[in-house]
Formats: sequence, structure tokens, C-alpha cells
Amino acid sequence: MNFASDNAGGVHPRIMAALAAANEGHVPSYGADRITHAAQDRVRELFDAPEAAVHFLTSGTAANALALSLLAPGWGKVFCHETAHIQTSETGAPEFFTGGAKLVGIPGIGGKITPEALAETLVVHGREGVHAGVNAALSLTNATEWGTAYSPDEVAALASIAREAGLGVHMDGARFANALAGLDVAPADLTWRAGVDMLSLGATKNGCMAVEAVVIFDPAKSEEFGFRRKRGGGLVSKHRFLSAQVLGWLEGDLWLQLARHANAMAHELALGLSRLPGVRIDQRVETNSVFATIPRDLHRRACASGICYHLWPHTQDETGEDPVSIRLVCGWDTRLEDVEGALRALS
Amino acid sequence: MNFASDNAGGVHPRIMAALAAANEGHVPSYGADRITHAAQDRVRELFDAPEAAVHFLTSGTAANALALSLLAPGWGKVFCHETAHIQTSETGAPEFFTGGAKLVGIPGIGGKITPEALAETLVVHGREGVHAGVNAALSLTNATEWGTAYSPDEVAALASIAREAGLGVHMDGARFANALAGLDVAPADLTWRAGVDMLSLGATKNGCMAVEAVVIFDPAKSEEFGFRRKRGGGLVSKHRFLSAQVLGWLEGDLWLQLARHANAMAHELALGLSRLPGVRIDQRVETNSVFATIPRDLHRRACASGICYHLWPHTQDETGEDPVSIRLVCGWDTRLEDVEGALRALS
Amino acid sequence: MNFASDNAGGVHPRIMAALAAANEGHVPSYGADRITHAAQDRVRELFDAPEAAVHFLTSGTAANALALSLLAPGWGKVFCHETAHIQTSETGAPEFFTGGAKLVGIPGIGGKITPEALAETLVVHGREGVHAGVNAALSLTNATEWGTAYSPDEVAALASIAREAGLGVHMDGARFANALAGLDVAPADLTWRAGVDMLSLGATKNGCMAVEAVVIFDPAKSEEFGFRRKRGGGLVSKHRFLSAQVLGWLEGDLWLQLARHANAMAHELALGLSRLPGVRIDQRVETNSVFATIPRDLHRRACASGICYHLWPHTQDETGEDPVSIRLVCGWDTRLEDVEGALRALS
Amino acid sequence: MNFASDNAGGVHPRIMAALAAANEGHVPSYGADRITHAAQDRVRELFDAPEAAVHFLTSGTAANALALSLLAPGWGKVFCHETAHIQTSETGAPEFFTGGAKLVGIPGIGGKITPEALAETLVVHGREGVHAGVNAALSLTNATEWGTAYSPDEVAALASIAREAGLGVHMDGARFANALAGLDVAPADLTWRAGVDMLSLGATKNGCMAVEAVVIFDPAKSEEFGFRRKRGGGLVSKHRFLSAQVLGWLEGDLWLQLARHANAMAHELALGLSRLPGVRIDQRVETNSVFATIPRDLHRRACASGICYHLWPHTQDETGEDPVSIRLVCGWDTRLEDVEGALRALS
Repeated sequence: MNFASDNAGGVHPRIMAALAAANEGHVPSYGADRITHAAQDRVRELFDAPEAAVHFLTSGTAANALALSLLAPGWGKVFCHETAHIQTSETGAPEFFTGGAKLVGIPGIGGKITPEALAETLVVHGREGVHAGVNAALSLTNATEWGTAYSPDEVAALASIAREAGLGVHMDGARFANALAGLDVAPADLTWRAGVDMLSLGATKNGCMAVEAVVIFDPAKSEEFGFRRKRGGGLVSKHRFLSAQVLGWLEGDLWLQLARHANAMAHELALGLSRLPGVRIDQRVETNSVFATIPRDLHRRACASGICYHLWPHTQDETGEDPVSIRLVCGWDTRLEDVEGALRALS
Repeated sequence: MNFASDNAGGVHPRIMAALAAANEGHVPSYGADRITHAAQDRVRELFDAPEAAVHFLTSGTAANALALSLLAPGWGKVFCHETAHIQTSETGAPEFFTGGAKLVGIPGIGGKITPEALAETLVVHGREGVHAGVNAALSLTNATEWGTAYSPDEVAALASIAREAGLGVHMDGARFANALAGLDVAPADLTWRAGVDMLSLGATKNGCMAVEAVVIFDPAKSEEFGFRRKRGGGLVSKHRFLSAQVLGWLEGDLWLQLARHANAMAHELALGLSRLPGVRIDQRVETNSVFATIPRDLHRRACASGICYHLWPHTQDETGEDPVSIRLVCGWDTRLEDVEGALRALS
Repeated sequence: MNFASDNAGGVHPRIMAALAAANEGHVPSYGADRITHAAQDRVRELFDAPEAAVHFLTSGTAANALALSLLAPGWGKVFCHETAHIQTSETGAPEFFTGGAKLVGIPGIGGKITPEALAETLVVHGREGVHAGVNAALSLTNATEWGTAYSPDEVAALASIAREAGLGVHMDGARFANALAGLDVAPADLTWRAGVDMLSLGATKNGCMAVEAVVIFDPAKSEEFGFRRKRGGGLVSKHRFLSAQVLGWLEGDLWLQLARHANAMAHELALGLSRLPGVRIDQRVETNSVFATIPRDLHRRACASGICYHLWPHTQDETGEDPVSIRLVCGWDTRLEDVEGALRALS
Repeated sequence: MNFASDNAGGVHPRIMAALAAANEGHVPSYGADRITHAAQDRVRELFDAPEAAVHFLTSGTAANALALSLLAPGWGKVFCHETAHIQTSETGAPEFFTGGAKLVGIPGIGGKITPEALAETLVVHGREGVHAGVNAALSLTNATEWGTAYSPDEVAALASIAREAGLGVHMDGARFANALAGLDVAPADLTWRAGVDMLSLGATKNGCMAVEAVVIFDPAKSEEFGFRRKRGGGLVSKHRFLSAQVLGWLEGDLWLQLARHANAMAHELALGLSRLPGVRIDQRVETNSVFATIPRDLHRRACASGICYHLWPHTQDETGEDPVSIRLVCGWDTRLEDVEGALRALS
């Protein structure tokens, strides 16, 4: 019963099948093959964005950092939530790929930046120029690091402030499918129609093996991408095997089905947890993560029963605090019986 | 009557004389000359640090960024006050020279970090490792950006927490002489004896033309410095003219006399301002800067009278807010009559 | 009949099977899983190097650039053959990851550096210091870009000169298995026993989907690797799927069988080509590539028959020169009937 | 009798006087002062380039690296002579500031690139694209590292090839005044009229204390410069003291007088040396450097007589080779009696 991360899961059988099917004969490498073109077309179609540039990579950190490097120079500032993955968990990759841009964390409940907070931060960082640098980009994680999701209107409100201030808008969509499924909206509505310039579209967590896409809605901003990906070591040679994953994942809306299932499991889990004595659900469950505060006794029991999850934030004292705050993540392959089994073990 | 910055001032006549005296014959370039060796020795002597490495540069930003690049790798975090010059006014130079380190701003009254705030921040950033990076350095500005000064005990308390956590300790001493003069302590007591590994020792603002020193108390950390300075474009060829400034500046404790004078002028100015109706002095004046909040009417009168200073923070609306917050800086060449003239014009 | 690149081929069925077998249940991500540990152990065992650090990535460019970043600082020089892949085909990745190191190309017949040429180059670059930088690393490609292979003795002779001069030694082993197979020597003999510090061990071209290993024989040099890989966007989350490929590839010496087969096909192809009128084989075939100069007529016929390969070097005029120089690469999945068919079409 | 470098000399009295004159009162810092504006205007006027952007720095390495960073991205190639200062003596600064660009050295007699060699090199590097990077810039040193000077026609021929190939053109003019004086041509003719986009205009060696200018003839390419200079630590605060040097240096064509004098001294020195038995002058003396090969005996005598110069190249064996090759540089302050004294001592 592993709720530690959606990275702990495996690959969906239909995606394995797509990989097997792609393993035929010789094809051009580095993305010049037909499977890659088909996958790129399919992404463009799903996003209703015929002009978008679509690039595949094997890591979300690379996707985010490369996308940001198109938006922010080394003397730029990137505004993001203070708990954004790019700020807390990417070891300086955005700084490395941009050549030194500064990430400015904005606080906000539930992992979300409010328009007010963004506007206020832009005032505080209003002095641009040779000593202060330039305000370059806004990066929104959707679904957020706290399992919530920005709606199209929320994205649009933030992007509008950002664009007014001359910022490009990036969306870290490591769990974009979960956000789409949770909100039940169209990909275009949550991205370019709401003012997003670039999306890191995560597929790995949601049933793939290792593939993320960067979707650049304004292709003029895409010219450098190929050079930056290659010199960043991110260009995979037998490219068809990235693209085949993407095709299999999108085929027949598998990606949304998997995301919906993961979200449903998280709701189920939260519901069950909320009924346990002393348990508090800390965030509204909008996608596939559950944040809860639970008595230390219960935590001990969970660990003893082989129920895996992370303390959240990580800096809690593993032995001392009571209650403890935890994060549980459901994936495309979390089974209802896993959830029920976990709840039973804790009751 | 210019109180905008101590960068607006000129060069002390004795330093001009030192430059003229150094302008004799041919000497080895790039720091292999006797004037440079003498200046380095003099710094070591004043800091009671016979093993220290001493390097000269023409910009404080370069001094800070290079010093930090010895302490923090590209995946490191540098902890500093949220209004530290390295964070707000160096356009990503620390990020550039370190190869992407992340500056973590810590709030604190009067531009000062408290031990409690540092300790708490280190807990929040307690998760080190491949996703989070490493906690690498603490950078303290002394005198601070708000004109206050950390005492040797305060530095020691912070450095002790830092060292416990494995951090190197850097001091941005753009106005180090003003801090020394304000506190009336010895250079060694405010630096290495209190746990500081590296000092950016500012001389330009305090009467020189263009020279800053980096003093590296642990010479083992200095090995890379020469390479980093050269490839950063910071190695001046006719080096004797940097060193001559330093020698002139330190000769007969000129540096401390100049700093004491600037501090005294700031006290005078603050005292006079505090007597004006509606004026509030916002920070205890401990060195050479005065931070005040004044009625907009008074601000208009000051501008009309040719009294120059900066709104502080810069992001205030130049036409709207009432009262306005301002910063006035006194330099080595601020005359008592300038201060009195300004106060008279405002009365 | 594709001889363009060994990147054009697919994945060996046993490696596909290993991927399928790894797709079971939940396991820790980012390399903390048992499959990864097993793969690392297996590499250590094969190299008779129980202390070596072993890291997996999805691109050879990332492997090379990260390995070099452990050996060369931004002010370092990396010596390599003038046609080394790191110099001609990695878009500045080594410069990016090292923070600006300079690659110094050394000419040499058959893609190989001779001890004399290396020694002479080190004399020319003998002035180290703050203006010139430091001589940091030697990088040898084995098998070379021209299909030849350095023997253990040849590696040892070069590594010995390098080490004498204080250089670290890196081997770009994108086609390491082909070199091993061609030379019929043990992995340890061609690497650490001959003085190699780090190996980029290529698996993708030789039957895998997307996995390369960096083997660091001196684990003290490995400490930074994890940070550098992560912030370079090279850490794959569902890590077991890299490791499973490696395990499948090494199982039962599959890697050597595949390499031997590819090499044999190249010999067959070269033999057949050499019998065609006007054809000259330009390099002794020691691994899986054939370099030949052929009449333009024959080139036209080949293209018309669907035989794919690259002009080599690429800068030849596609329409004008006669004869033309070409590179043909055989892979693990090149069939004897492909070779024979190609030769028949050209006769 | 120091002929080691024009960096070993001092500051011309008129430039010292200009510094003293600039040391009056308070002025805006960071280049917003009237002296800076006047110096920038004067440069524009002398180059007949009213639109040019002019920036001042304290190091030639910074000037070169920053100029190149405007022309070449991290995946770009910069073509230069194989003995160009940017390639041999700037410790990776161009690589650092560009974010990883690759310098491609072109051989050529007398430190000069010929049009044929440039064209041929561009063919060899003709494969641009995601694996190879892009061809970004040509950098010409004028006067060259071997004391020769490109004429306007020679520059134009090279720049024309470069521009055809899409390259920007940079001129490293560390000794630009010496080239101008040697050729007796106008600044504009040797730069923008011949196709140069950016000039590093050296003043330090030619009588100043520490100031170099970057002149950007196409101001659209200048926008980033301010940010890049600041974050590179190259923005000097009391900027008037850089600008005052430039004004004093250009006033009444002092710069050309000083360069003419240095050139004349080099001619005198070469003439005298050429008459000594066993001495060969290796390069036509066109500016202020003399390259000669002399018997080791003579070399010993020179050293014993206190005549300073460098072995050239540096990698010669200080004790062994006979004859030895040397470089002697004359400066603005080399006196005829120094030259005559040296010649006398060697006769």
C-alpha cells in the first residue's frame, strides 16, 4: 500500500504495448521519425493548438528548467509559489538552465498564488533595471504541490496580471492530467486560452515510463529549445520510444481515465481518513493527493502496517511531533482494495 | 547636498596622492608588484590574520559573488537577509558566479537576521539532498543595508549556528569600516574571531576610487580565487593602482577616520531631522545612513532645495504616498555645513 | 537497409522483456529500488570494481558532460581527439556542465590520439596559471568516432602521460561494448586498470531503449554526481526502468554478443564493399562502423536502392564531389541479409 | 628597461590630471554622470558613429567576454586566431560569459587569419544544427597578438565572409590605438565601415590606469549589455573615474600620439636588434611589439643587464633551447634612451 508518490507506480499495459509496437525496424533517430511526428500532432490536436511546438524529454525537472530558460534570462526573476517544485525540489535546475535567474517564492494557501499576492509581489519587485534585474516569468504548478487545482479563470486572472507586467507564463503540469480531470475542463482552456505560454506536460507519473512534454504555444519562443535541450543532455536518441509512450497515453483518452481514477482513489482515501478519530484533512482534495494531520499513534500503526507515505513537510521530526502532517498520493494504479485495505488497517 | 549614496562622493586627497606616488616606472602587472604585496600585508596585519589571502577588485558585486562562489556550489543555498544587497541589487551575480546557487532571504528588523530566525530557516530548509540541494553559506551584511551594525557577539551567535549546520560564513562589508567605527571594535573581532570565513571589504564608498578587497581567512578556501577572478573579468592588469588606493586608505587609520566622520554626519542629520514636525526616524542610526519617514510636503521642499536622496524602498509611488520613506547616506566627504544647510532648508 | 546510425535500431527482445518484468507493483523512485541496486552491482562486478559508483542516465551527452564536470572546473582544459563526439556533436554540453571548460582537439589518424601527439599538446598548453587555466582532463572515445579501438596498452600509455600531467582520464564509451568485443579484452583492462577514472558506458546504441551509465572508478570523485545529475535534469524518476534495461543487457553477456554481431556485420560489409570497383575502405574496421570512399555513381545507386548512410564528414557537398566519403554503421539488429542485400544492390 | 608588457607601464600625466579634475563634488554613480556622458559622446564622435553604445569597464577580458556574450549563445561557435588572447589568455572568460560557447582557433602567419583560412574553417564547421551548434561570431584581434595589424581592407574581407555566414564580428582592440597609428587610418574605417559590430577598445595599456570601452556599433545588440556587465561584477560605482580617463586619453589625440610613440620605439628596437649577430626579427613590426629569435648567450646577457621581456611562446624551456624566441613590447612610456640603453647592453 504505497502512497508515497505517483513516481513509485509502474507503466500502464497499453503504454507498454505501445512501446512494443514501436519496436519495429530502423527509423530516424533524435525525433525525426514518424511516431514522434504523430505524437506531436496528437498533442497539438488535443490542445487545439496547431502551431504549438512540442518536445519530449525524460524528466520533469528538465522540462521545467528548459521551458523557463526560454522565458527568463540570467538576470531575470521567476515568480512562483513558495512551495513550487521548481523552487523546493529541483536542486537549482532552473537557475542552472537559465544561467542564474532568481526564483521568487510567493506564499499562498493550498499551494495557490492569489491575484492579490501576485500583484503585491510585483510591486515589491517593481524596481527593474540594471541593479535589480527584470521580472521575467510566472510559473504556476497545476495541479499544485498541495493537490489543489487552479481553474481556467484562476489561471487567466494570474496570467493577465503577469502579462500586463511583461512576464511570460509557464505552467508546471507534472500532474496536469489530474488537474484537467479534477476540473473537467479542456486542455486549451487551462493553458493558452487562459494566457499560458508554455506547459510542462507530465506523463511519467500518470502511467508512462519516462516521458514529459514541453508544449510551447507561441512557436516563436521555441527556436532555441532544440539547442538548449541537446546541450542540456536532454535529447534522447531513440526518440520513438518517448513518442510511443505519449501516443499510447493519449490514445482513447487513456491519460484522462488514469487521472480520473487516481483522483477518485484520493477522494475515497480522504473520505475514509476523515472518519478516523483525530484525523484532519488539511487540503480540499481536488486531484490525486491527500494532505492530512493525524495522531502520532495512528502514524505508527500505519508504518507498522506497511502503509507508505511521506511526512509533509519533510522537515518534521520523525520521532517527536504529535500530531504529524502527512501526504498520501494515489496513482493510476492505486487499487480501491489498496485504499480500503489501508483504511481498514488504520481503523 | 547629495545624500543619495556614498557612491556619489569623490576620492580622498591622500588616496589621490597615493595613486600619484604609485605612478613611477615599470612594475610587474596583475598583482605581482611590491605595492600589491605591501597592501596585502597591511590588510593581514590590520586583521591580525597573517595567513589570510587578500585579493583586490574594482567592484563590490564581483567581490561578493566571487567570495560566495568559493562557499556555495551551483546546488547550494546561501542564506541572507531578505533585503541583502546580494539579493536585491546584484542582478543575479551570486547566481552567475556560483553556477546557480539559490539565495534564501530571511526577514528581520533593521536589516538584521536574528539567531532565532536563522535557526528556524535552517529547519525549514532542513531537507538537504539530491532534490533539495545543500545548505552552503550564510552571508551577513555589516553594516547592514539599513545602517545598523552587527556586534561581534551577534556575528558570533549567527556564525556559530551556521557552522554547526555546515555553512561557510561570508560578510558583505561594503560599509565594513562604518560598522567598525560605529561599534568601536577591532577588525578581527568582527570577522574571523567571530566565525567569518570571508570578508568583502569595501573601500570605494569610503574614500577610494574603485577598489574592494576579498579577505579569505582560511587560505585553503582561496586556491580557486585567482582563476575565478580572472575568468570573471575581474583581474585588473595595472594592479598597483588598486593596491595603492588600499595602502593610502589604511595609512594612519584614514579608513576609520573617514568612516567615523561619515557616521557622525549621519547622527547629526538624524538628530536634526527628528526635530522637524512629522518626521520619524525609522532605524537607530548606527553607521552612516539615516532612514526616515517624512511628510510629502517636506519631501517636495527637499527636492526643490536640491537635497538629493532615495525613496526607500524604491517601489514607493513618487507622486502619491504621504508620508514617504527615505534613505539619506552620509559619506566621508559630507560636510557639516551640508548637513546644517539641508536641515535649515527643511525647517 | 539502414546503416545511418546504431541509434536507428530498436530494442532487443530480452531487454523489452526485462522492462516488462520490472513493471510490477510499487517501488521507491529515483534509484532507491532493488532493480537499480542490482544493476549497479552487476556493473561493478563486470568491471571488477567493487568500489565504483554507477549512475544511470538517458543520454550519452549527459553522461559525458556530467563525467567531465567532475574532472574539469570552468577554467580547465579537456584534451580530446579533434573529431571527438564531445567536441563535434554535443552542442557545448561539456562547456555547459563544466561551467566553461575548454575542449582542446588533438589531430590523429583513425580517430586516435597518439602518446606523442598528447605529449606535444601538453607542451603547447604547458603554461598553466591564472591567465591560461589548468589542464584538467583527457577524454578518449573508445571505440573511436572512426570505428577504431584503443587497446588496453594504448589507453594505458595515454593515461599515464595524462596522470603525470595531473589530468583526470575520462572514456567516452558510447560504443564501449563494440570496443571490448573487437579487442576481446576485459572491461577492467580497458578502463581502470589502464588508468581511466570515469567511463560513459553506452547501452542505448547496443540494444537498449534509452540508458547510459557513468561508472566512476574512484568513488571520492563521485560525491557531486547526484547533485549535478539532478540539477542537469538527468535524474529519471521511475528509475527501475533504466536499471532493468541495464540488467537485461548485461544478462548472459548479451551486451557482448550484440556487439560482436554488429562488429561482424561491419566486417562483412567492408569486405564486400572493398571488392566493388572504385571503392576504398578508409579505416581498418575494428568495431561496427565502416568508412569508405566510393564513386559518386555508386553513391547515387545506393541512395536509389534505399541504402541509408551518412556522408562523412557531413560537410561534403551532397551534389558535387566525386568520389564521396561515407560512414556505414552496423547495429545489433543489422541482419546478414541486410548486408548481403546492400552489397548485391551495389554490384 | 622593461619590455615585458605594456601593462607594466604607468599612467600618462594628462590622464592623472583628468582624474584629479574629475574629483570634484558629488555626482550620480554607475555612469549617470556628465563626465561619463561626455566620454561616451567623444568616443561616438571619434568613430563617426552617433548611434553607437559605449560602455566602460576595468578589464579587457571582461570587455571581450561581454561583447562576445552579445554575439554568441551558449551553443555558438566563435572563430578566432589560434593565438588570440581570448583563446589563450582569458581562462575561459568567453566561455563563462556566453554560457558555454566554443572558441575555434584558426592558424595563420603573423597572428592573422586569412580570408581563405576563414572560409575553409567555415566549411569544416559547416554542419550547424542541434548537434553541432551554430556559427555565431568572428573575433579579430587588432593589432594582433603578434604585433601585426589588419588593414581596413583585410578586416572588410574577413567581415564580409563572416557576415555572409551569419556571424557577428567582434574586434579585440586591446592595442587598437597602436593599430590605428601603425596603419594611419580612421577609427571608423578599421571598424564599422569594415563590418565590425563590436569593438573592445583598450585604453589601459596605452596610458590609462584601468579602463576599457566596449563600443557596440549596432545599438540594438546593446540592450542586454547593462545587465550582463552588472551581473558579471563589471559595473564600477564611481563611474566618473573611468570616464575621466577616457576623456583625458582622447583629448587632443593623446591616444594616437602615445600609440605612435610606442610603435616608433618598437621600430627602433627591432632595427637595433636586427643588427646584432645571430638575431632574427620574426615578425614585421607594425605596431608596438617586437618578436625576435636570439642566441641563448644574448638572452643571458639581456637578463643579466636587467632587460625584461617574455619568452614567446611561454612554453619554451627557460634553460635549454638555443636560440630562444622572445617578445619585447614598447609602451607609451618607453623612452628612446631605454631602447638605446638596451641595445648598447646587448652589443
